[in-house]
Amino acid sequence: MTSPLSPLAPDQFPDLPVIDGVSFAATAAGVRYQGRTDVMLAVLQPGTTIAGVFTTSSTRAAPVLDCQDKLGGDPTAGAAILVNSGNANAFTGHYGQTSVEEVVAAVSKTAGVPAHRVFTSSTGVIGEPMAHDRIIDKLQDLTRTQDPTKIKDAAQAIMTTDTFPKGSAAQVDVEGTAVSIAGIAKGSGMIAPDMATMLVYIFTDARIGQADLQNLISRLNAKTFNCITVDSDTSTSDTLLACATGAAGVDVTGHAGFEAALHKVMQDLAHQVVRDGEGASKFVEVKVTGAATDADAHTHGMAIANSPLVKTAIAGEDPNWGRIVMAIGKSGVAADRDKLSISFGDVLVAEKGWVNPTYREEDGAQHMKGDAIQIHVDLGLGAGAATVWTCDLTHRYIDINADYRS
Amino acid sequence: MTSPLSPLAPDQFPDLPVIDGVSFAATAAGVRYQGRTDVMLAVLQPGTTIAGVFTTSSTRAAPVLDCQDKLGGDPTAGAAILVNSGNANAFTGHYGQTSVEEVVAAVSKTAGVPAHRVFTSSTGVIGEPMAHDRIIDKLQDLTRTQDPTKIKDAAQAIMTTDTFPKGSAAQVDVEGTAVSIAGIAKGSGMIAPDMATMLVYIFTDARIGQADLQNLISRLNAKTFNCITVDSDTSTSDTLLACATGAAGVDVTGHAGFEAALHKVMQDLAHQVVRDGEGASKFVEVKVTGAATDADAHTHGMAIANSPLVKTAIAGEDPNWGRIVMAIGKSGVAADRDKLSISFGDVLVAEKGWVNPTYREEDGAQHMKGDAIQIHVDLGLGAGAATVWTCDLTHRYIDINADYRS
Repeated sequence: MTSPLSPLAPDQFPDLPVIDGVSFAATAAGVRYQGRTDVMLAVLQPGTTIAGVFTTSSTRAAPVLDCQDKLGGDPTAGAAILVNSGNANAFTGHYGQTSVEEVVAAVSKTAGVPAHRVFTSSTGVIGEPMAHDRIIDKLQDLTRTQDPTKIKDAAQAIMTTDTFPKGSAAQVDVEGTAVSIAGIAKGSGMIAPDMATMLVYIFTDARIGQADLQNLISRLNAKTFNCITVDSDTSTSDTLLACATGAAGVDVTGHAGFEAALHKVMQDLAHQVVRDGEGASKFVEVKVTGAATDADAHTHGMAIANSPLVKTAIAGEDPNWGRIVMAIGKSGVAADRDKLSISFGDVLVAEKGWVNPTYREEDGAQHMKGDAIQIHVDLGLGAGAATVWTCDLTHRYIDINADYRS
Repeated sequence: MTSPLSPLAPDQFPDLPVIDGVSFAATAAGVRYQGRTDVMLAVLQPGTTIAGVFTTSSTRAAPVLDCQDKLGGDPTAGAAILVNSGNANAFTGHYGQTSVEEVVAAVSKTAGVPAHRVFTSSTGVIGEPMAHDRIIDKLQDLTRTQDPTKIKDAAQAIMTTDTFPKGSAAQVDVEGTAVSIAGIAKGSGMIAPDMATMLVYIFTDARIGQADLQNLISRLNAKTFNCITVDSDTSTSDTLLACATGAAGVDVTGHAGFEAALHKVMQDLAHQVVRDGEGASKFVEVKVTGAATDADAHTHGMAIANSPLVKTAIAGEDPNWGRIVMAIGKSGVAADRDKLSISFGDVLVAEKGWVNPTYREEDGAQHMKGDAIQIHVDLGLGAGAATVWTCDLTHRYIDINADYRS
C-alpha cells in the first residue's frame, strides 16, 4: 500500500466542478486498511437517472449482482452510492449477499432513500468476509458530512493499489446552459477488456432518461474502458455508474456536444487507469488500422497490448517489432503477413512482410526511450480500425503482485 | 544466452536410445550465436514416414510454410531435417522464402535426398534476414559427420534461451519386437496453446503409415504440447515433426502400447519446456474437472495458467485463491460461482462459493513453498476435464525479455 507514485501520474488531481444535485463524504472505517479513508458515500437528489456497465465475470461479486438488479428502478426518489475499498466482497457465498443487504438497508435508513436506489461497490481482496458492521457504524458520519465539493475525498477513499486518485471533468454548453460532468475512477491491476476499469463513477447535472443514458455509456464504454488493459486479468467487481441529476434543467438526449464531453471524461479516466497500471513506466497506445473489421482491429490491438513479450520489450526500451508480428499472428483473426506495416511513432519500421529498407534501429530505439509509446499497425486488408491503451510490464508489477496480497 | 540453469531442470539429459535409420550431426555455423553449436542435421533412411504439427500463427515463418507443404510427400526416398537456432527466418518477406529454398537445395544435393523430403526449421530472432550461406557452408561437415548416437548434440544445437537441452525416450514391446522412441525439444519463452512448444523432433524405428502417424501425433499433441503455456505468447515457428523409420520391422498402427509410449515421450518433453520456462521457479499443474465439456475445462485451465496475477502469486508463494476465482470468472466459458471448489495439492481451499470453513491459510502456504504446485478446480457442472501445465511469473522473466533481444 506504500507504492511510490506512478511516474506516469498527472501533475495533480484536476479541479473538478461541483455537480448540482450530488454530494459526497468519505471516512476511515478500517474495513482492511489503517490510516486512510476507505468508504465513500455519494447522495443524489430525487429524479437522478442512473445507468451502469459491469464486469462480465461469471464469478462477479455480490454488490455487482445487486447493482445490476437495480438499474432500471424508478428514479423519482433520491439515490445513494456507497463504495468501500479493502474488501471486494467477492466469492463470499451467501454471507456476501447478506453484507450487501445489511449495508443497503442501513444506507437506505440513514440517507433516507429507498433500498432499491442504494448502489454499492466493494473493491479489494477476494474471498474474505467483509466487516460490513464497520461501514454501517460510519453511516451517520457519512450522511452528516455530505458536501458537494468533496468529490476528491471520494476518489481517494476508493483507491486500492492505485498510486494516485483519478478524476476528470468537462463542461459543455447545451442551448445556452452550461452542463457539467465530473468523474472519478480507481483501478491499477486486474485491468482488462470486458469492463476494463475497476470502479468508475460519473456525475452530471444534465437531464437524460435512464434508457438514453444507458445507451450512451454502453456505446462510449466500448471505446474507452473496454479498450484498456494492464495485465489481461478481469476483476470480479468492475463497475461503472453514471448519474444524471438533471439539476442544470436542460435535456441532453441526442446532444452531440454532451456525448463528446462525456467521451472525453471517460477516455481521460481510462487513460489514468492505465497510467496507474501496476508497475507501469510507459503509457502505450496501440492503433490498428486496415483490418477486415473494427472487431478484428480490436482483437489485434488487444493481442499486442496483452502480450507479455511485447510489454517486457517496451519496459526494456527495445524496439522489438518482431514480437508485434508474433502478437498479430497469434490473435486468431485475419492478417496477411505480406501486407502489414508497423510504425513506432513516426518511424515506419516494417512494411509488406519485412523490415522497411530505410529503417534504422536507432530511430526505433529513440522512440522507445520516451514514456508515451505509439504503436501503429496497418493490416492492409480493409477499413477496420481500433485504438487500445496499455502499459509496459516491469519488475515493479512482479513486486506488487508477488509480494503482497492486494 | 548465459542464463543460469533453471531450478526445475532435470538432473541430467536422459540416455536416449539409438533409433535405427536416423543419424545426427551438429555444428557451429555462427548464424547469430558465437561459441556454441547452432545447426543440426538429421538424415533419415528411405521409407521413413514424417508427420507434423505446426503453429497456427497467421505470421508463421517461411520454413513452417515450407514444411506444411511437404508433409504428404512420397516417403520412398530418404529425408533430412535441418534446424538452425539464432534466427527464426520469420517476417523476412520474399528473402525468407529464398533462404529456405537455398538451404533446401543445398541439403538435397549434399545429403542426396530429394528437395521435397528436406524439412527445415529456424528459431531465434524475428525480422532479420538469415545468414543462410553460413549454414550452407557447413553442410559438407554436417553430412560427413553423421552419427546415430549424436541426438544430444542435435538437442543442444537447437536451443535459444533454453537453459538445458531437452530429451525423452521410451521403449515398447510390439509383438515381441522392441520398438524405440526418442525425442528432443527446445522452447522456453513464447510458449502458448496452438502448438505450444517451439521445436520438437521425435524419432522411432517403428513402422507406421504417414496418415496414421499424423492422426496419432495430432491427437497426442492436443493433450501435451497444446496444454502448456509459459507466457501466453505463440511463436511464429512452432514445429513438431515425428519420423518413423520402420527399421525395427514392425508395424505399430493402432497399437495401444505404442501410443502410450509416444504419449509419455511427448508429455515429458512438454513438461521439460515448461520446466525451462523463462524465469520459472515453480512447475504448476492446473487440473480442471466438473466442467460442462472438456473444451470448457481446457479454457478454464488456460485462463488460470495464463493469468499474470495467478502466476505472480505463485512466484510469491502466496496461496491467493481469489485470483483463481477471478481467472475462472474471466475465462468466458460456463462456471457457477456457488458450485466451484478449489484445492492446492491435498488442501481443499474453497467450495460452494466460499472458503472451506476448515481451511487454514498456513496449509495453503505450505503447499506453495514447494516447487511442484498443483491447482485443482472442480466446477461442479458436468464431466468435462482437462489438465494443463505452466510455470510461475518471476523477475527473471522480465530480466530475460526486457534486457535482451532473444
